[in-house]
Amino acid sequence: MTQDDRRRQLVGIGLRMLVERPIQELSVDEVAREAGISRGLLFHYFPNKTAFHDAVVAAAARRVVRNTAPDEGLAPAEAVAQFVARYYGQVDRRRDSYLALVFGSGAVGLGGEHVEGLRLAMAERILAVLDLDGDALPVAHGWTAYVEDRALRWSAVPEGERSRTLEEEVAHCVRALEALLAVR
Amino acid sequence: MTQDDRRRQLVGIGLRMLVERPIQELSVDEVAREAGISRGLLFHYFPNKTAFHDAVVAAAARRVVRNTAPDEGLAPAEAVAQFVARYYGQVDRRRDSYLALVFGSGAVGLGGEHVEGLRLAMAERILAVLDLDGDALPVAHGWTAYVEDRALRWSAVPEGERSRTLEEEVAHCVRALEALLAVR
Repeated sequence: MTQDDRRRQLVGIGLRMLVERPIQELSVDEVAREAGISRGLLFHYFPNKTAFHDAVVAAAARRVVRNTAPDEGLAPAEAVAQFVARYYGQVDRRRDSYLALVFGSGAVGLGGEHVEGLRLAMAERILAVLDLDGDALPVAHGWTAYVEDRALRWSAVPEGERSRTLEEEVAHCVRALEALLAVR
Repeated sequence: MTQDDRRRQLVGIGLRMLVERPIQELSVDEVAREAGISRGLLFHYFPNKTAFHDAVVAAAARRVVRNTAPDEGLAPAEAVAQFVARYYGQVDRRRDSYLALVFGSGAVGLGGEHVEGLRLAMAERILAVLDLDGDALPVAHGWTAYVEDRALRWSAVPEGERSRTLEEEVAHCVRALEALLAVR
């Protein structure tokens, strides 16, 4: 394995563990064991535990961006709707891991860097899809926080007890973006 | 001192320290020293370090709610504007501590509980000010996340280099709330 392959393998194991527990409970020993290497060798690839956690959280943020990409070739409004639906699905399927990613990343620093990277990537995607210029970035960026907040509250209620369907939430979020852009 | 007084004193010292550093760097030893008590006695009031951190973060969230309360007797739109202006001021003055509160609270749990308490308190205030019923809660709650996102980005730019004034931001956020409520 090259150094990059090994780093990717270790981060991948960390990512799988992050589905089950918050980042601060991610054990470097377990990760090394699963990779079949010693704890010492892991620290050859990452200078310390914080650096490893940081790489896992960054990868988790990139995964959310990747998993929520709309299909190519959709009309702009459809692409926004598909992004929102996929984003809700992601938060719903991996709520604990998402919470740890957003609100728990302070465990690996002052906090906010990875969330900022995540929101910026999603906001830039929205600008590209809607062919908007940078003036609209604060609105698109803030709107991702709005959608996140709604998705977290919506997914906190067990399926079957939710007062709104996914389709209603998606339709609202699409209208919300239009409404926010109109008062830019 | 009663037990409650002592707990309040210790949390107050923690709050002052939280202005300078993220929660996970809050040293229980330093807090005990400043209060003039032993580390052991501190653990008489809080079962462990996490419980102490948790109490400090909860107090920090309550402080944000208190510091952003609009004056009594304002017209609804003015009250919303004053809340937004005070909220931006709070985030701007204590940006690092706010980041630690929101994105770093995962250090004391799965994350999100204190943020949820903070947003809920602010959203309920908005409903009360505008005399809206609970149907509007998801919009008001999500809007607090939208305002937070904008305030964090705005305050990240040094004063004098910001592309929008505080007044423009406040006016936008007030219009944004109206726009979101209209597409509820």
